[in-house]
Amino acid sequence: MAQRTHACGEVYEQHEGQEVVLKGWVQKRRDLGGLIFVDLRDRTGIVQVVFGDGAPEALTVAEKIRSEFVIEVVGKVVLRQEGQVNPNLKTGKIEVMASTITIINEAKTPPFAIDDKVEIAEDLRLKYRYLDLRRPAMFDTFKMRSDVTRTIRNFLQNEGFLEVETPILTKSTPEGARDYLVPSRVHEGEFYALPQSPQLFKQLLMVSGFEKYFQIARCFRDEDLRADRQPEFTQVDIETSFMTMDEIIAMNERLIQQVMRDVKGVEVEAPFQRMSYQEAMARYGSDKPDVRFGLELKQLSEIVKDSAFGIFANAVKAGGEVKAINVKGAADNYSRKDIDALGEFAGRYGAKGLAWLKVTAEGLNGPIAKFFEGDAATAIIEATEAEAGDLLLFVADKSSVVADALGALRLKLGKELNLIDESTFAFLWVVDWPLFEYDEEEGRYYAAHHPFTRPFDEDLALMDSNPKEVRAQAYDIVLNGYELGGGSLRIYERDLQEKMFELLGFTQEEAHAQFGFLLEAFEYGVPPHGGVAFGLDRFVMLLAGRTNLRDTIAFPKTASASCLLTDAPSQVADAQLTELHLAVTANKEK
Amino acid sequence: MAQRTHACGEVYEQHEGQEVVLKGWVQKRRDLGGLIFVDLRDRTGIVQVVFGDGAPEALTVAEKIRSEFVIEVVGKVVLRQEGQVNPNLKTGKIEVMASTITIINEAKTPPFAIDDKVEIAEDLRLKYRYLDLRRPAMFDTFKMRSDVTRTIRNFLQNEGFLEVETPILTKSTPEGARDYLVPSRVHEGEFYALPQSPQLFKQLLMVSGFEKYFQIARCFRDEDLRADRQPEFTQVDIETSFMTMDEIIAMNERLIQQVMRDVKGVEVEAPFQRMSYQEAMARYGSDKPDVRFGLELKQLSEIVKDSAFGIFANAVKAGGEVKAINVKGAADNYSRKDIDALGEFAGRYGAKGLAWLKVTAEGLNGPIAKFFEGDAATAIIEATEAEAGDLLLFVADKSSVVADALGALRLKLGKELNLIDESTFAFLWVVDWPLFEYDEEEGRYYAAHHPFTRPFDEDLALMDSNPKEVRAQAYDIVLNGYELGGGSLRIYERDLQEKMFELLGFTQEEAHAQFGFLLEAFEYGVPPHGGVAFGLDRFVMLLAGRTNLRDTIAFPKTASASCLLTDAPSQVADAQLTELHLAVTANKEK
Repeated sequence: MAQRTHACGEVYEQHEGQEVVLKGWVQKRRDLGGLIFVDLRDRTGIVQVVFGDGAPEALTVAEKIRSEFVIEVVGKVVLRQEGQVNPNLKTGKIEVMASTITIINEAKTPPFAIDDKVEIAEDLRLKYRYLDLRRPAMFDTFKMRSDVTRTIRNFLQNEGFLEVETPILTKSTPEGARDYLVPSRVHEGEFYALPQSPQLFKQLLMVSGFEKYFQIARCFRDEDLRADRQPEFTQVDIETSFMTMDEIIAMNERLIQQVMRDVKGVEVEAPFQRMSYQEAMARYGSDKPDVRFGLELKQLSEIVKDSAFGIFANAVKAGGEVKAINVKGAADNYSRKDIDALGEFAGRYGAKGLAWLKVTAEGLNGPIAKFFEGDAATAIIEATEAEAGDLLLFVADKSSVVADALGALRLKLGKELNLIDESTFAFLWVVDWPLFEYDEEEGRYYAAHHPFTRPFDEDLALMDSNPKEVRAQAYDIVLNGYELGGGSLRIYERDLQEKMFELLGFTQEEAHAQFGFLLEAFEYGVPPHGGVAFGLDRFVMLLAGRTNLRDTIAFPKTASASCLLTDAPSQVADAQLTELHLAVTANKEK
Repeated sequence: MAQRTHACGEVYEQHEGQEVVLKGWVQKRRDLGGLIFVDLRDRTGIVQVVFGDGAPEALTVAEKIRSEFVIEVVGKVVLRQEGQVNPNLKTGKIEVMASTITIINEAKTPPFAIDDKVEIAEDLRLKYRYLDLRRPAMFDTFKMRSDVTRTIRNFLQNEGFLEVETPILTKSTPEGARDYLVPSRVHEGEFYALPQSPQLFKQLLMVSGFEKYFQIARCFRDEDLRADRQPEFTQVDIETSFMTMDEIIAMNERLIQQVMRDVKGVEVEAPFQRMSYQEAMARYGSDKPDVRFGLELKQLSEIVKDSAFGIFANAVKAGGEVKAINVKGAADNYSRKDIDALGEFAGRYGAKGLAWLKVTAEGLNGPIAKFFEGDAATAIIEATEAEAGDLLLFVADKSSVVADALGALRLKLGKELNLIDESTFAFLWVVDWPLFEYDEEEGRYYAAHHPFTRPFDEDLALMDSNPKEVRAQAYDIVLNGYELGGGSLRIYERDLQEKMFELLGFTQEEAHAQFGFLLEAFEYGVPPHGGVAFGLDRFVMLLAGRTNLRDTIAFPKTASASCLLTDAPSQVADAQLTELHLAVTANKEK
C-alpha cells in the first residue's frame, strides 16, 4: 500500500494537477455510463473520485465496490467543470481522476446509512455504535470533547495545577448515592467501591499541601438512570488551598471563558451573574434557572390571601404560596383544552390544579375572575405586569410544589413559545445555599451538597439552634438551565467536621468507621481549601448543541445500565465467583 | 485572612523591603533568646521567618506554634547578614521579619518528620499518605507526572489525535489476566468487568474511522502483586489507522523525544536502536535488555558440545545450550564463596549449576579447566573475548533457562560492578516477536502479545503448518531494562481473526460469546490499524529516578491490594449485598 498524501476533506483547488493518494470509506458509488463516481469519506470529509476509460483496470475494480468498503485510490486532482461544482462540499471545486484503486477491506451493507440526516432508533445506534460513530456529527462531537479537555488541562496547568490520579478501587461510603462494589479476591468477604467522586482524595491532597489539584475523573453511581444520567460519568474535578470563594469563582470563570473562546469562538463576559438560591427559587422556581428568558414567577400570596377563592386563601393560610406566570400575549392562543393540558403537565410536578385568568382591556376573564374584581384585579395585573391579551397561570400549594410546577411550566412554555435564544450561553452562579435539607418524613437532616461543605462563619452559631438557617459557602454553576457543576469551601477543622457528622445523624462509631482517616488527617495541619467539579459530559452536550448525554459518551449504557454493543453486564464463569468467595442468590437463568 | 502575595519558595533578594503575605506549614521552629526563627514551607519551598521584639504580639503567638501548624505570616523581606546566608535554600539570601502571624490550623506531632532524608517504613508512609506526600521529593514526582501527561497530550493532540474515554464498566473477557468484577444490581447474577486495557474499544474506534485515538487510561488486573505491579495502573493508550509499523514507531519516538526534552531537558537521538527478539534473547538473555552496559551472553555450544565435561556436552545434546558471560577483570575479586553465592542466585532462575573459569596469562583456571585445554581453551577465550584476569560464568541448560539465569546474573553483576551509567536513558525497540508461545504442559498455544496481533504477511502460510515460526508485527519499547510499553499492528480481517481464535483453542461458540461484537464489526469495513500502550507509572518512575512504582501513584495499594489509608477493601452492609443478589460464601469474620 502507498503512503497517504492527503485526507479526503483536504484536497482543494490549489492541488490541481497533483497526484494524490487517498484512503477512506466509500460513502456512495454512482455509475454513469462508463464513468463511476465515488464519494470517498474519511474523518475530515468527503471528496469525489472519478473512474473512467483512462484507467480501465481501476474502472473494473471500482465496479465491485460498495458502500463502506475501505479503499485506497491514487489519482490526479482536476478542477470540476463549471456547473459541476458542489458548494456544499469543502472539496466541491475539484475531483480526483483515479489511476489505481486497491480494495483494502470489504463491507456488508450496514444496518443504517452513515449519514447525519438519517434518524435511527437509538437501540440500533448503540448496538452498532462503531457505525454510529462514523457519522460526521458524532465525530465532530468527540473532536469537540477532546478539544474541551485540552483547553481545560492547559488552562489549569498554566495556573499551576497538577493533574493527580486518584484511585478507582476505593472504600465504600454509603452516604449519598449507591456505590458500585468490587469484590476482593484476596480479602474474603470484603469489597472495594468505585468512587462517586474523588472528594475525599482531593481533600487529602490539600492536607498534603499540593495546593492546586485537578483531575478529569471518572465517577460512578449505581442509580436508576434518567435520560441525563449514566452509571459512569466524567467530572472536571478541582481543589485549591488558601483561596477565598470569590477567588475560586473568578478562576473558574476564566477557565470557562477560555473554553468558550477556544471551542466556540465566543467571548463570555465576566464576572458571571450571581444569584442566591432563595432568589432563584423565588423568581424561577428552580435552583438551576435558565435565565435566557423571562416568564418569571410572580408572588401573589399577599394579594389573594384574603380572597373569596378558597383554594388560594387556604394555601396561604396553610403556610404555602400562590404564584403565577404571565404568558405574554397568549390569551387568544390557548384554548380551554390547551390549558387543561398544561394543568395536567403541572400535575406531574405535584400541583393539584392550575388556575388561570385571561387579561382583557376590561379586566380579568375566566372561571375564577369573579373572585378577583376591582382592587384585587388591579393588584394582580400590576404584580404580574400584565396587559390585555396576556394569560396568567396560577399554582397555589406549599412552596416547593409551587416552585416545581411553575418552574417546569415556565421551561415548557419558554420552549413552546420560542422565547429562548438558543445561540446564547447564559452562565450563572447560584450561591447562598442552605447547608442542610430537612427530610420531613425521616425527621432528619441531609447535607444539601455533601458533609464536607463549609458553613458561613457568621452562621456557625446557628448550627445548634437552627440548622435550617445555616448557609453553606457553596456555589453551583448553571448554564442555560442545566447544572454544569458546583463546589464549596470545605470544613478544615476536626471538631466542626465531627459536629457536621453528628447533625447528619452519624453516631461517633459510624463517623469513624467511614471517615476516620479524614478526621485523623484533620489533626495534622490542614489548610483552608475548597473546590469545584464540573460535569464534563453535560458541558460537552451543551457546547455541541445536543440534547442526549449519550451522544457525548463514546460507548454509553442504556437506561438499564447495559451496553448493547458488548452485552455487558453478562454472566461469568462459576470459577470466577468461587475465587471471589461469592454466590449469586438470584435465579441465574436470563 | 489576607491574600497571599508570594509562595514561600519564591521570595528573593529582589523583594527586599517589600511586605509579603505568606501561608504554609511550619517546617521547624528555633528559639534563640528573644528571637524565634521559623522555616515556613509550602509546595514551592522553604523561607525563613523571624519573630522578634519589633512585633511582640506576633512573637508571643509564635511561641505557640509547632511543626506542621498552618500559619499566615505578614512581614517584610530583609537581606540576611553576611555569614547567615544559606546557599542550600533558593530563598537563602533573605529572611522575612514578621509583623503579624495567624495560626490557621494546629497540628499534632506527625508520626514522622516531613523530610526527604528520613527513611520511613513503607506501611507508615502508606497509612499517613497525606503526610508522606508533603515531602518535597514526593511533590516533585507528582509534578513531574503531571508534566509528562501534559506533554504527551499536547504532542498527540497536535498530531491530530483525539482523546476518547472508553468504559470502565465493561464486559468480562477471561483471556489474559484475571478481571475485577462488578456485580450488577439491575441484571441479577450478571457482572461488569473493569478493563485490563481499552484494547477492544480502541480497535472499535478505528472501525469508526476515528483514525487517531489516544487515552491516558486506567486499567485493572486482579493478579498477585509484585513490587512493580498495582491492581490499577495507568496506560498511555494510542491507536491509529492506515499507518505502517515504521510510521507508528517513528511517531512514538518523536513523542518520547518530546517528553525527554520537556521533562528532563535531554535530547534523545532517533531513530532508536531496534533489535529482534531473537537477538535480545541471544545477547542479553532478556526480551527487555538493559543495553547501557555489555557483559553479553556468549554462545559456546559448538565449542563445548564434544567436550569431556558431561554437563556441557549433555546439555547441548539434549537440545539445550551452553553460554557464558565474561566478568572483565573480576577473577581476583570473586572468591569461591562469592561464586557459590552467584550460583545460588542463578539457581533461582532455574539453573542447576553455575560453572566458572578464571582466565590467567597461562590459560584457564578452575575446577573444570581440565576439560578445556589447548584448542578448546583458545576457542573459549576467543568466543568470550577474554583476557587474563577475567572471570567466566557458564550456564548449561535448555535455552530458556540459560537465558533467564545468565540474563539475571548479567543485571545483578552490572549493578554490583557499577557498569551502568545511571544518567543515560537507553531506549530500544524489540521487534520480530513470535506471534505465539507454546505451553508444553498444557499443549496449547498462547498469544505472545494478545489475540489481535497481526502476523507478518509473509508468515501467513505458516499459521497452519508451523505456528511457532510465525512472527508478529509487534514492537516493545524498552528503557534501561524495563518494558516501557508495547504495541502491534492488528488483525483487520474477520477470517484471519477467527483463525487466530481457533489456533488459541477457542471453540467457535466461545469466540463468539466473548468477541462476537468485534467479529461482527470486522464485517463493516475495517481499516488497517495498530497502536501502542505505554505504562505511565513505570515511565514516571524511571524519569524520576525512583525504584518503587508506588512512589509514582498518589494513593497506591500494598502487595495484598489494600489501601492502608482508607482501609479498602472493607466489609459492606448486608443490605448492599442483598440488592446485588449476592451472598458471601466465606467466613465474614476478619
